[in-house]
Amino acid sequence: MVKTLTIDLGDRSYPIHIGAGLLTASGLIDRHIAGRQVLVVTNDVVAPLYLDPVMASITAPDKASLVLPDGEAFKTLDTVNRIFDALLERRYSRNATLVALGGGVIGDIVGFAAACYQRGIPFVQVPTTLLAQVDSSVGGKTGVNHPLGKNMIGAFHQPRAVIADTATLDTLPDRELRAGVAEVIKYGLIRDAEFFHWLETNLDRLLQRDPAALAFAIERSCRNKAEVVSADEREVGLRAILNFGHTFGHAIETGCGYGKFLHGEAVAVGMCQAADLSARLGLLPAEDVARIVRLIERAGLPTVPPAELDSERFLRLMAVDKKNVDGRIRLILLEEIGRAALPQAVPVELLKATLDEYGRTVV
Amino acid sequence: MVKTLTIDLGDRSYPIHIGAGLLTASGLIDRHIAGRQVLVVTNDVVAPLYLDPVMASITAPDKASLVLPDGEAFKTLDTVNRIFDALLERRYSRNATLVALGGGVIGDIVGFAAACYQRGIPFVQVPTTLLAQVDSSVGGKTGVNHPLGKNMIGAFHQPRAVIADTATLDTLPDRELRAGVAEVIKYGLIRDAEFFHWLETNLDRLLQRDPAALAFAIERSCRNKAEVVSADEREVGLRAILNFGHTFGHAIETGCGYGKFLHGEAVAVGMCQAADLSARLGLLPAEDVARIVRLIERAGLPTVPPAELDSERFLRLMAVDKKNVDGRIRLILLEEIGRAALPQAVPVELLKATLDEYGRTVV
Repeated sequence: MVKTLTIDLGDRSYPIHIGAGLLTASGLIDRHIAGRQVLVVTNDVVAPLYLDPVMASITAPDKASLVLPDGEAFKTLDTVNRIFDALLERRYSRNATLVALGGGVIGDIVGFAAACYQRGIPFVQVPTTLLAQVDSSVGGKTGVNHPLGKNMIGAFHQPRAVIADTATLDTLPDRELRAGVAEVIKYGLIRDAEFFHWLETNLDRLLQRDPAALAFAIERSCRNKAEVVSADEREVGLRAILNFGHTFGHAIETGCGYGKFLHGEAVAVGMCQAADLSARLGLLPAEDVARIVRLIERAGLPTVPPAELDSERFLRLMAVDKKNVDGRIRLILLEEIGRAALPQAVPVELLKATLDEYGRTVV
Repeated sequence: MVKTLTIDLGDRSYPIHIGAGLLTASGLIDRHIAGRQVLVVTNDVVAPLYLDPVMASITAPDKASLVLPDGEAFKTLDTVNRIFDALLERRYSRNATLVALGGGVIGDIVGFAAACYQRGIPFVQVPTTLLAQVDSSVGGKTGVNHPLGKNMIGAFHQPRAVIADTATLDTLPDRELRAGVAEVIKYGLIRDAEFFHWLETNLDRLLQRDPAALAFAIERSCRNKAEVVSADEREVGLRAILNFGHTFGHAIETGCGYGKFLHGEAVAVGMCQAADLSARLGLLPAEDVARIVRLIERAGLPTVPPAELDSERFLRLMAVDKKNVDGRIRLILLEEIGRAALPQAVPVELLKATLDEYGRTVV
């Protein structure tokens, strides 16, 4: 069974197809390839599992694949350049299509390559991790990291389609599943209290990979994301709430070296910190902070930052963030479970208090 | 005296200011900087001439400059990364402004960096060569070269303003002035027969840097470009005619190594070749080809390709071009002086005939 949602962006609108087995049997990837030239880009973990059947399902006459090394550490401009090399060695034209087969890193890199090759070519997202299926493959944010800042180099470039085959989650390592659950919890926190309650009740089913629970969580997450992105494609306003917990999280990822913390793990910690700060500002009741931390803990996710990041270092890292204006740190905070506020500058003393105390007093 | 034209693109509209002395005395650069953070990027030839006065004219409190090496050979992803380094070392936010002070290479690189930094920040074009003032600074095409193809990596990203100070042409080397004249002639050929006639009459005044003649040619060129870009920002159709001569020209630049031929010189040769091919196809009278070649020769520009590029090599290089579809070469041809056709596939035998014969029979 296929569920289809739509990202509504005028002439850049596109479908999100969600279902088990879509990757091979459905012909859906092929349907979203317009030209004769296709390059499928994946990584060395996903390739042995899914590359052959995906290649076989594509009917375009001039098709090729490129296998990149796996991991956030390779989400760099150099890796993007390898995709340009592959496209140019094959003399691919502006109507060639890129297919991103993998998790969030592959999707972000391939989407950015598609944004820049010949000033923009079509691409299709085929996410194979929970995190990519519920979050990063949807919405057209693409890009790579810089040693001084996460996702600092990139473009808005919408895919032609997102094809989320939930059967691929069968092969997903537990740690990556849990990292994806962090972004699922995020949707409940920022705009869907009912979903948060559902997660409190059904988390164990999710972690046990109950297909119905997974399918529901993916669809509900994508529906939330689709509504936000359709309302604010370029993050002029509302879209920034999708970054709840991410300013803290990005600082952890950059500060510890890309790849040590999975993105979802860093975001899990960041959501706890953002909740704590929301309480310090009098926005969120302390008991809600406790509920949030409890759910994240139950998901097997970290709730405190690594000891190596003291508050001074944290602050320096947070000074590099796309939401900042003229160098002032701006954060997404919670007004209640299910309602996030737009980015706001926060008193540095309170932020420092969260960074100093967090992990000792709250959890 | 300042002339102001407008690129009409809805909420991305912007002015082109043309005049002598705009770079320092007018305060125009400063007027187009919105935030508190500014990075002026230039090269080591332009910096000693104009960087200090430009920096002094900017009132933003957090301003800095970056001086890159000069030349097409440095129009690479690595150079763009140096700009990202500079922005991130200063922790510049998404509302920082980049200023591109220099010729076409600087404008293309800085524009691309602005397109990608934090998924897009504002930038201002301050072109200091004739080529950049009449062509590359206007219209939002940004990007860098790849060893296998010119301008293959890039983005459409419109500047906030173009500030063309005609006084900067006083310090422009003769060879670069002539290279700029090639693009000026192009506008006459593709859509402005009256301007072509004016150029036949007034070319010597241009080459002698008569200020009134230069001002007229720059304004007329920008007016032509503004009309085309306003009608077709993303090169869905009409805009491709601005690439007249460029498929041949890019092949020369890539084939000989970036920087050996100036871009305008390569385009000059390419326009002669495209005119020759137009005649072979029965579109353009032979006497018009002769008129075109004569004007380009009078401008001191090359009209024949380098001997090292035989027709086989030329064809392989031309197979990498953004106008191609599914690997088929498509070219802009002339129907008469002052009227270009949209891109069309051409019989390979006739293209080969142009590549084989050109330089021996026509000129």
